[in-house]
Amino acid sequence: MLPNSIKQVLRQGAKSNVTVYGHVKSVRHSKNVGFADISDGSGKSMAAVFKDPSKFLEAYPLKVGQSIAAVGRVTESRGKGQEYELLMDSVKIIGDVPDSYPIQKKKINVQTLRSLPTLRHRTQTLASVLRLRSTLEARLSKFFVERDFIKVNPPVLTSSDCEGAGETFKVEKSSEFFEKDTYLTVSSQLHLEVLSQSLSRVWTLTPCFRAEMSHTNRHLSEFWMLEAEISFIDDVQQLTNFVESMIKSVVANDIPDLIDSRFDPKDREEISRRFELMRGQWNTITYSDAIDLIAKYMPGEANVVWGDSISTAHEKWLAGSHFKSPVFITDYPQEQKPFYMPKSKIFDESRPTVACFDLIIPEIGELVGGSLREWQLDPLKQEMLSRGMNIDDMQWYLSLRENGTVPHGGFGLGFERLVCYLSAMDNVKDVIPFPRVPESCTC
Amino acid sequence: MLPNSIKQVLRQGAKSNVTVYGHVKSVRHSKNVGFADISDGSGKSMAAVFKDPSKFLEAYPLKVGQSIAAVGRVTESRGKGQEYELLMDSVKIIGDVPDSYPIQKKKINVQTLRSLPTLRHRTQTLASVLRLRSTLEARLSKFFVERDFIKVNPPVLTSSDCEGAGETFKVEKSSEFFEKDTYLTVSSQLHLEVLSQSLSRVWTLTPCFRAEMSHTNRHLSEFWMLEAEISFIDDVQQLTNFVESMIKSVVANDIPDLIDSRFDPKDREEISRRFELMRGQWNTITYSDAIDLIAKYMPGEANVVWGDSISTAHEKWLAGSHFKSPVFITDYPQEQKPFYMPKSKIFDESRPTVACFDLIIPEIGELVGGSLREWQLDPLKQEMLSRGMNIDDMQWYLSLRENGTVPHGGFGLGFERLVCYLSAMDNVKDVIPFPRVPESCTC
Repeated sequence: MLPNSIKQVLRQGAKSNVTVYGHVKSVRHSKNVGFADISDGSGKSMAAVFKDPSKFLEAYPLKVGQSIAAVGRVTESRGKGQEYELLMDSVKIIGDVPDSYPIQKKKINVQTLRSLPTLRHRTQTLASVLRLRSTLEARLSKFFVERDFIKVNPPVLTSSDCEGAGETFKVEKSSEFFEKDTYLTVSSQLHLEVLSQSLSRVWTLTPCFRAEMSHTNRHLSEFWMLEAEISFIDDVQQLTNFVESMIKSVVANDIPDLIDSRFDPKDREEISRRFELMRGQWNTITYSDAIDLIAKYMPGEANVVWGDSISTAHEKWLAGSHFKSPVFITDYPQEQKPFYMPKSKIFDESRPTVACFDLIIPEIGELVGGSLREWQLDPLKQEMLSRGMNIDDMQWYLSLRENGTVPHGGFGLGFERLVCYLSAMDNVKDVIPFPRVPESCTC
Repeated sequence: MLPNSIKQVLRQGAKSNVTVYGHVKSVRHSKNVGFADISDGSGKSMAAVFKDPSKFLEAYPLKVGQSIAAVGRVTESRGKGQEYELLMDSVKIIGDVPDSYPIQKKKINVQTLRSLPTLRHRTQTLASVLRLRSTLEARLSKFFVERDFIKVNPPVLTSSDCEGAGETFKVEKSSEFFEKDTYLTVSSQLHLEVLSQSLSRVWTLTPCFRAEMSHTNRHLSEFWMLEAEISFIDDVQQLTNFVESMIKSVVANDIPDLIDSRFDPKDREEISRRFELMRGQWNTITYSDAIDLIAKYMPGEANVVWGDSISTAHEKWLAGSHFKSPVFITDYPQEQKPFYMPKSKIFDESRPTVACFDLIIPEIGELVGGSLREWQLDPLKQEMLSRGMNIDDMQWYLSLRENGTVPHGGFGLGFERLVCYLSAMDNVKDVIPFPRVPESCTC
């Protein structure tokens, strides 16, 4: 039905009369023998060998970037680092390239590649990142399926905003089309709360949007968020334990197919190190403990006091330098957090905190944020009023607390940050196919 | 970590001292014994039995809609239709309900339920539809993983529009934020074409948007589309064979857990019939054949001639009445289709057609649309010019044809239509949690 991908050809092993489809990634030759690297992006590339190079290249003028169909025999390889190679008899050049074709064998830095949005995923590095991303999603799906979670699709278009989560994009003329001002969702949490009260355990992986003018290596205007919401739980530790086992299930096995063949040795080592670190011991501290540690031990931060924000720099220091592990920080000050978070189990009137957590990891900082949700009507309403929120707009959300309300909680994980960390990339722009950031929405 | 769901409790079988969490769905009693139905939406509900009803209900005043934690012993059931039941010793009422709680035991029609967006998924029918949807997605994922497809996330925000696919929503002030007018995607096809030329085989399941003022039972302003794009293919039949095996893989096994327990007998029968029909023989005809059949055999349609559109009514008649099977219609007139479709293999100058297909199914009409894509620069450019398109805006797309271009094709499947058909629902509004349609974007 479909021609075999190179991944399939390599799986089948030694065989005659095989056609290999892909793009030429490199061509070189000595006097007696030539080599071409053919990749279709499905995984490892195919090393192709040809005899009598001057004659062969005259008949088939191979150039880097061409798409080709190469015919020959697959045999065990005599070269290093690959099991099989293609002894090439003939080539059909399908699509040619101009001399200016920019993706040559020489490594191009990722910043330059961002200016080549339609070609950049032909590089080994960025292709392998997208394969890793796809595999991570499949592993996360498996984790949730095994635990009886229902995958749901909350809306992108919403007439409510998940209060406090960030600036929103508005749909033009939405008040005409929908008879209500309509925005792109910043978080699916409120809708997942609705669904978790019908289906108990729900999760989603869905696009979210933040109209913030931030230029960092960890923010996108459009990103994918994994969110889950769980009914009949009443302790933050149930959430942190769950998140830890979720991420550990994802890194439980290496992904040799992705890692070994595609990155340079330094990258490979770093990826293995990060997988290993995620598999190790994790730590949990309260916000108050975190502030104490930062003030006491972090260079230049002696003036940090209770009530201050924990910055990304603080997070990276805590996870990367101090604990050298993923760290859950729980029980943040109430005034730093949104209206729907209930008081902490151990509550100090003089330092009011809420039942929530952030998961911070080295290099990245915040990866996951979650909390219990205030599930009783009166305290929720009071908190909203004290923050000056419009109760009428949120009646649909409040009504959940009047109709068989249930203690529940959940979390959101920035998917690009997870992919970025595990693929040892420096910028979330390089782990999503077409990044959208301020001043940039090419094609 | 998490309390057991009812699905898990039922899986574990007979056991003492079990706590069951969920909502009360019904309560009834005779003089000596009482029954309550408890559901948490995870699957089948738990039948709970209690003795000495007047005393029990005085201690625990159960009402439909309450959330509860029921404690007792799980034993093999003496009732029909369920394996286990809970002999209930005590109940904690967690969240109470007002007398006006609208989701009572009596079946409510789906139109009425749409006015209860936060509660409607507590009904057996709509909860089971969301579970079916989740299972279908998992099965589709498995199909693609097994065939080495990479799952990718093309952008929702785009500065291009997939020409001809439909009216777009525009993001307000996008030209300020992104320095370009930015729209919500109507189809990911063009971006998937880019990625398929790097990764060979890609697929996605992603939200798409159409700003059309249509009020039908098969259209949503926001819907989820499964799209795939495949390199190194050059025949429409490769696509139709692929789509047929994809959908057959999804219906290969019944979903007894979802179907048996949740729908009323009439629905169950209809669902089984639809699964069966999808597993049977499919048919393929050309557009020209389809027009002939309609004109010849469809009542009242004798005037239909070559060049006319095949309407939804025609589609339903062809698939539902004439063939009684899913039907691929191939090779539509060029002028009915977008710019990127190449000429048909067998091309008649007097009746120019393109290498494309629609999959139509009974009850629904079009479920999938796909085609080969014109992969050579000159004919593509000429077609765009002849349609008066702006070549400059599409330079990124055209550049693919200049840099190692590859014959390729793909398709898009409206996911809600598949869920709607297989769950025997009448309206796509009832198979997505929060439907968005003109004049309606509640919560």
